[in-house]
Amino acid sequence: MKTRRSERLIDMTQFLMNQPHELVSLTYFAEKYSSAKSSISEDLTIIKRTFKSRGFGELKTIPGATGGVKFIPKIPEELAREMIDELCEKLSDEDRLLPGGYVYLSDLLGQPNLLRKVGQIIASKYCDKEVDAVMTVATKGVPIAQAVSNFLNVPFVIVRRDSKITEGATVSVNYASGSSHRIEKMELSKRSLKSGSRVLVVDDFMKGGGTAHGMESLIEEFDCELAGICVFAESRFNGERSVSDYDSLLFVQDVDTKTKSITVVPGNIFNKE
Amino acid sequence: MKTRRSERLIDMTQFLMNQPHELVSLTYFAEKYSSAKSSISEDLTIIKRTFKSRGFGELKTIPGATGGVKFIPKIPEELAREMIDELCEKLSDEDRLLPGGYVYLSDLLGQPNLLRKVGQIIASKYCDKEVDAVMTVATKGVPIAQAVSNFLNVPFVIVRRDSKITEGATVSVNYASGSSHRIEKMELSKRSLKSGSRVLVVDDFMKGGGTAHGMESLIEEFDCELAGICVFAESRFNGERSVSDYDSLLFVQDVDTKTKSITVVPGNIFNKE
Repeated sequence: MKTRRSERLIDMTQFLMNQPHELVSLTYFAEKYSSAKSSISEDLTIIKRTFKSRGFGELKTIPGATGGVKFIPKIPEELAREMIDELCEKLSDEDRLLPGGYVYLSDLLGQPNLLRKVGQIIASKYCDKEVDAVMTVATKGVPIAQAVSNFLNVPFVIVRRDSKITEGATVSVNYASGSSHRIEKMELSKRSLKSGSRVLVVDDFMKGGGTAHGMESLIEEFDCELAGICVFAESRFNGERSVSDYDSLLFVQDVDTKTKSITVVPGNIFNKE
Repeated sequence: MKTRRSERLIDMTQFLMNQPHELVSLTYFAEKYSSAKSSISEDLTIIKRTFKSRGFGELKTIPGATGGVKFIPKIPEELAREMIDELCEKLSDEDRLLPGGYVYLSDLLGQPNLLRKVGQIIASKYCDKEVDAVMTVATKGVPIAQAVSNFLNVPFVIVRRDSKITEGATVSVNYASGSSHRIEKMELSKRSLKSGSRVLVVDDFMKGGGTAHGMESLIEEFDCELAGICVFAESRFNGERSVSDYDSLLFVQDVDTKTKSITVVPGNIFNKE
């Protein structure tokens, strides 16, 4: 039975949203809805226009016999800036101040709405970078990695500081923790990453960049390529960072334990290009 | 300017999918699209019918002045069973066998498509249980907690075995690790969970149930209530488990390190009710 346009539009929207970055042929939709390709084509034009005008992203049309459509989630920069401004305000709350000048983030990194936004912002930034996998380090980077992986539709891998029996054979590297000058070890399950993959490194927080640099070394050990480094928040750091090229959503400019104040401003993610 | 029906249907679909379990008033949509409430009402009827027939879930209508619609993601049991059968096959692959009879899972728990399905299945099962928060233990439970939290649209909290300076004050409990008879400690940041919350516990794997039981104790310490326990996979266990009431998606029935075979069958999630 032929499907009505209204039903098709609803079903196609949810289908494309759940399959970002994946090529879907017109034939697939035509068969799914027992509809003519010309009708499907018209549907897709409406969806494309709406996705664009509403700021969800781009519906790319790939022509030819092996062609089809691909949904690339992309958040308009204006909207991303608004979201980041909101985050700055939330993070500047003095109640977040912890002993030692640390900032409490864990509650934010457990909120699905916020993670969805963070995932969209980072995935938009790297949508053209041919990312094959997202990498992070346990534990607090995981929610960010998963959110980004969800919008780029690529797997994420978790580097650990402690070896676990359930990981099988691992590859490990030593790295210098920039802020504490200690040598630490991180490892990744051997079977979790294919050689030749382009890997995007994400994490919740960057100080000296030692952890990110450690992940860079791991990427080399796996014969993979670094596609970029992006952190949720960076802090001020006196000295030279172990990595120079990275994006941050937020910049913790100042933490004053005496006056109990935290100043958070947007990071460098929109400074380049 | 008035918005066309086709555009409204696409936009409303994505809006509702990104805001599950949240009440949205008709007025909100009417203003957003500069359309009459009667048109919005017709749109929602079409969406409700399509969501139901396509197996995305239920669009609940709450009548009255403070009413509106609420999207409850629900996967049909038939489809969930199919997904679980596929998972059984994947897990039964002898390449997953690790020394000591462990089963390698980490690659699966890093695939966004699979996590989306697992999240949908668990969220469907608990959609009527008034869950306020999802709880898991670091590190491997985190992706499952996040996926479930995404579909229930409630925050998730991460219990840790090691204290971190960035968590602030914590509450800790001791628990008996059922499989190894050791006493271990787990802790949760004090500010991460409000008293009175109904908490759903999820994890990647259950053997003796000691970890889940530890989380139960933590929930009590926070004056919260257990809404349920659900694990991705459980294994055979000789002896009495520390928790009796739980759901599992998969059951690792047999692991034979000599013949190098793993037998995985569906868990108990569809056995009850």
